[in-house]
Amino acid sequence: MRLLVTGSAGFIGSHLVDRLLSEGHEVTGFDNFSVGQPEFLADARRSSKFHLIHGDILNETTIAKAMQGVDLVFHLAANADVRFGIEHPQKDLEQNTIGTFRVLEAMRHAGVTQIVFASTGSIYGEPDTFPTPENCPFPVQTSLYGASKLAAEGLIEAYTEGFGLQGHIFRFVSILGERYTHGHVFDFYKQLLDHPDRLDVLGNGKQRKSYLYIQDCLDAMLLAIRKSNGRLNIFNLGADEFCTVDDSIGWICEHLSLNPRRAYSGGDRGWIGDSPFIFLDCSMIRNLGWKPHLTIREGIIRTLEYLRQNEWILNRRREV
Amino acid sequence: MRLLVTGSAGFIGSHLVDRLLSEGHEVTGFDNFSVGQPEFLADARRSSKFHLIHGDILNETTIAKAMQGVDLVFHLAANADVRFGIEHPQKDLEQNTIGTFRVLEAMRHAGVTQIVFASTGSIYGEPDTFPTPENCPFPVQTSLYGASKLAAEGLIEAYTEGFGLQGHIFRFVSILGERYTHGHVFDFYKQLLDHPDRLDVLGNGKQRKSYLYIQDCLDAMLLAIRKSNGRLNIFNLGADEFCTVDDSIGWICEHLSLNPRRAYSGGDRGWIGDSPFIFLDCSMIRNLGWKPHLTIREGIIRTLEYLRQNEWILNRRREV
Repeated sequence: MRLLVTGSAGFIGSHLVDRLLSEGHEVTGFDNFSVGQPEFLADARRSSKFHLIHGDILNETTIAKAMQGVDLVFHLAANADVRFGIEHPQKDLEQNTIGTFRVLEAMRHAGVTQIVFASTGSIYGEPDTFPTPENCPFPVQTSLYGASKLAAEGLIEAYTEGFGLQGHIFRFVSILGERYTHGHVFDFYKQLLDHPDRLDVLGNGKQRKSYLYIQDCLDAMLLAIRKSNGRLNIFNLGADEFCTVDDSIGWICEHLSLNPRRAYSGGDRGWIGDSPFIFLDCSMIRNLGWKPHLTIREGIIRTLEYLRQNEWILNRRREV
Repeated sequence: MRLLVTGSAGFIGSHLVDRLLSEGHEVTGFDNFSVGQPEFLADARRSSKFHLIHGDILNETTIAKAMQGVDLVFHLAANADVRFGIEHPQKDLEQNTIGTFRVLEAMRHAGVTQIVFASTGSIYGEPDTFPTPENCPFPVQTSLYGASKLAAEGLIEAYTEGFGLQGHIFRFVSILGERYTHGHVFDFYKQLLDHPDRLDVLGNGKQRKSYLYIQDCLDAMLLAIRKSNGRLNIFNLGADEFCTVDDSIGWICEHLSLNPRRAYSGGDRGWIGDSPFIFLDCSMIRNLGWKPHLTIREGIIRTLEYLRQNEWILNRRREV
């Protein structure tokens, strides 16, 4: 199969490319390198089965060209920062909603009929049901990011109905692991390098979050694509556990043998639109036979170890 | 209060303008007249309290200017044709999703904090629960139109959270009445003028739909805005009844004293993305003390009578 991965130089995208190549597929990577890192594709570029297109999904010509001869699209290109939506509301709309529309249109014109989409548990806003199942009560959006991903889901759904596409939509918790260059582990590690005796924490530290290790995430996605063949297939992807921000700080500090003073910004949300409790019901994907191999704690430590061994990334990657 | 109505020359918009003026408000109408009819604003233009801006919500400069000094925005401008989405997928995205974004951004920059939004029961796709309540299980989109309105709802919700706006979102069934210039009554009447002995019907005639008369719709909206003061207020608006397409044909033909042969296109959907059953649970708005005054049948007859007395509209208004 010939596969296109948008956002191929990103955290999840680059791991996915590596995995798909290891399974023998022909893979085209597509990235505008606004966030993606060329280094993440170093292994992939050594494979003769990998082709890289430097382009933006918003550019109709480039994305149309990339779509030629493709069997399936993994659409991962996105603005993935949930936190800064209100600083630049247009970014989520453009990169996530309109970007997905451009990908769908390019698929339609090229006759590509299968899309796999990286959505997010953020579209549940602040749900009442925990763990939150895929068919929970109609949620209310609390972030521009969630709203933009919900809009993208809606487009994909309408395209499956209107144009006969097949879609796999995965609603992720935060994914952890090597090459994860934003989120709280990244923030905390960067802070502790600067000032090992103090850690600034957004919120009160009691926010409960769920995470999943990247390889477990890829296992789940590939299993679901193989086993689930409806026109539209929606899966939550997360661990069957959660931790508090304080738990995570404890694990990080223990691993680094540090004991910083914790300076909380206060409140039960880290930022406007932050969900104080994220915990997804993943029984649908578990019922296909998947389970994660790493705990949240192990995923956090792997992320931390990657950052320790790749300090170049701390300066390269800007938040926002 | 100074009110801005986008889509003010449309079916619902023009009735809303008339109502708001009759209540003594200062009203600015905003329309690009792509679908709206100047004649619908004939009464309004006789009022010194009415100001009309000929402009497009997608034009940032024009919409920014319109927002000056406004207290509340009724955002009704939209592509309102659910049926033709797959013929021009970009139209719903642009006019409904991006259009709503432009309105929200203009509000934010001008410091306008209240938005009333015309959404749709189409965002429920093909629900399992009837009547369908606002908090039904997370729906799947079946039309580009529904997807674009869902995206707009998500944006409004994220803006209420992120920027402190107050939002009222109304999910309408099809609204009936004077000036209603699309939908099945319009289609059928036009057909019966052309060939009174034959009526082409999309689907098998068994589709069950709910409708609401325009003045009942306005009563409900204005009541909800007065009585419901949460940051985000979402209401279904419809009748507590539904009818089949065949019921409606029967009433129309009886009223016109015609007995055409019915030629069904077949299938339980009129078009791709058509929902074979629309019936909303409106107990939330009913609990505020509202109830409709006209039955669906009466609303259909009023629509028909309007068309009989205003045949100019049949040639003016193109579908799509």
